[in-house]
Amino acid sequence: MSLPPRRSNCPLSVTLELVGDKWSLLLLRDMLIVGKSRYREFLASPEGISTNILANRLRQLEGYGLVEKFSDPADGKSRIYLPTSAGETLLPLLLDITLWGYQHFPGTGVPDIARPALEQGDTRELVAQCLARLQNERLALTGA
Amino acid sequence: MSLPPRRSNCPLSVTLELVGDKWSLLLLRDMLIVGKSRYREFLASPEGISTNILANRLRQLEGYGLVEKFSDPADGKSRIYLPTSAGETLLPLLLDITLWGYQHFPGTGVPDIARPALEQGDTRELVAQCLARLQNERLALTGA
Repeated sequence: MSLPPRRSNCPLSVTLELVGDKWSLLLLRDMLIVGKSRYREFLASPEGISTNILANRLRQLEGYGLVEKFSDPADGKSRIYLPTSAGETLLPLLLDITLWGYQHFPGTGVPDIARPALEQGDTRELVAQCLARLQNERLALTGA
Repeated sequence: MSLPPRRSNCPLSVTLELVGDKWSLLLLRDMLIVGKSRYREFLASPEGISTNILANRLRQLEGYGLVEKFSDPADGKSRIYLPTSAGETLLPLLLDITLWGYQHFPGTGVPDIARPALEQGDTRELVAQCLARLQNERLALTGA
């Protein structure tokens, strides 16, 4: 793991050095909640990330130990990206930020899977559901 | 209020367009938790923000309706920045991000005021304490 140099020892500052940009948390959203795991799937997300930013952020997230890259067992040239266990701990936080936006900006919308949690303001069941899905994906890939 | 154009209607994406950068939440930290309110105080924070980024982010936060600028009653040329009520709603979220960093990065530290909350993993009392202080600051400035 190679973390960026710290501007200060403030834990907020240190966290923002890792994921404080307009794209990293969207990629983690795609992996953690939406269930995307492939480069072309991230590229197709509605925010329209560019190929160079996508490649850069995936490399950064991997370097920070938040995302792990696997070879697709069905096609060795294809890559599959999954959040690590450290990356998974960002899920409740990511949903809290999403909930803040959902409550403050009229006209924002979320996929069906996330709607009940955001409407009820309680994301715990959604967190459990996403983590169970990720565990199965990892199991299918690595057998562990 | 002038919000940036939306990349998508995802509430996470919309929120990141406002505060998804390495500096905006640090300024809100300074205002909400540390009790700073002046340009030179933000400039003195340990992360070493540059004057042009500081001026830009203050202007953005004001434009997004998260921060309000006042004239210092004691010196009309001096400016005082306070979070708006919308800005104050970011406090619990900001503390959740801080808590995540505190729990994941050894060697990070926080001011005395925030330590009990982060060590106990419960930020509610700190939120109430900060909001009460901000209410007094606003009252002293505006009488409202």
